[in-house]
Amino acid sequence: MLTLHHSPLLPTCRKIRLMLREKNIPHALQNEDFWLRDVNFFALNPAGEVPVLVTSQQQIIVSAYAIAEFLDEMYPDVQFFGNSALERAEVRRLTDWFDAKFDREVTQLVLFEKIYKRLMGYGDPSADAIRAGKKNILYHLEYLSYLLQTRNWLAGDYLTLADITAASHLSCLDYLGDVAWEQFPNVKEWYSLIKCRPAFRDLLDDRIQGFRPPAHYMDVDF
Amino acid sequence: MLTLHHSPLLPTCRKIRLMLREKNIPHALQNEDFWLRDVNFFALNPAGEVPVLVTSQQQIIVSAYAIAEFLDEMYPDVQFFGNSALERAEVRRLTDWFDAKFDREVTQLVLFEKIYKRLMGYGDPSADAIRAGKKNILYHLEYLSYLLQTRNWLAGDYLTLADITAASHLSCLDYLGDVAWEQFPNVKEWYSLIKCRPAFRDLLDDRIQGFRPPAHYMDVDF
Repeated sequence: MLTLHHSPLLPTCRKIRLMLREKNIPHALQNEDFWLRDVNFFALNPAGEVPVLVTSQQQIIVSAYAIAEFLDEMYPDVQFFGNSALERAEVRRLTDWFDAKFDREVTQLVLFEKIYKRLMGYGDPSADAIRAGKKNILYHLEYLSYLLQTRNWLAGDYLTLADITAASHLSCLDYLGDVAWEQFPNVKEWYSLIKCRPAFRDLLDDRIQGFRPPAHYMDVDF
Repeated sequence: MLTLHHSPLLPTCRKIRLMLREKNIPHALQNEDFWLRDVNFFALNPAGEVPVLVTSQQQIIVSAYAIAEFLDEMYPDVQFFGNSALERAEVRRLTDWFDAKFDREVTQLVLFEKIYKRLMGYGDPSADAIRAGKKNILYHLEYLSYLLQTRNWLAGDYLTLADITAASHLSCLDYLGDVAWEQFPNVKEWYSLIKCRPAFRDLLDDRIQGFRPPAHYMDVDF
């Protein structure tokens, strides 16, 4: 069986969990407090980061990028990257948008400052950073809203890794009550379609000690 | 013919140029001062970032991640990702190491502060950031040196996108004289093998106005 080493409120880990569940791949989850720099975990990944996937043959797959591509190649029944080179390019463009640009402009500024900084013992959150992140998220929601005016899903006609990646980031920020859903009704509608998938319900059950999500967080009709 | 919109001293652009040259794909280069937020360029990529690849059918491929995968799928004669799912996972792990971790810990702190910050008109470089980046690069060089003790190339027995990506980042820092080659002889040896490839010579001819690279920058026997 596969084992995924993860941290429950990291978007890059959430998206791999969603892929595993959507593809019906049996797996175990191993929570890693990766900032403690445990030697056994460093032996798996010298970068000291999650997610890390370990196969039943003890093959080690490191980074959300490598794991997502590996899972789609090895378990092709449910495809997450589209049906042509161009569709795959669009899925990867949006995946990169969220895992690089959105991560830098929003997730790191809000989620890292509010939660991981404290867990890691890196001191108090920076109010300036959080303010900047909360301003930046509006531009990203606006772009999602623009895409969803002409598309059922972010990259086209069906659910792909682009949706999974975007929803993973947004779900972590939603845990903190930092997504202005009411201003973007079509984004809210798209998110509620993902939220009601059984694979997604698992994620929403996770809790971080000391941080309680808002009431609407679990609610499909939020 | 393909057109690559790029910026000459960005590692993510350099690696796509290297792929195009190594695969012998005819292409034109279009220099983009992406920070000027030109509307025509934003129409190609609403993220406002390079690299962007435009095909002869005006298909637009955005982000180094999507472009690299697209080129390997569409022009498979010279492969850059390895021959099995596991090899591909190792190539992608190291590609991600450089484009995410090394970029955050070194490239952004040194290259952005010393060059792009001035080009973009964002003020003076931060000496603290540069100092941190120059300290961080040593750990990365140490890791490269460790890998090269048992491997001919970073991901195994032959040149892959992992080497191309690492060399792209290092070549940009080398332009600034910020790579301590002498401390890591096997990394220097590996880099000199890449440096003497015809595809790489093109990159080294680029100059940024106001910044002159050190004497050894062009030299294959440096």
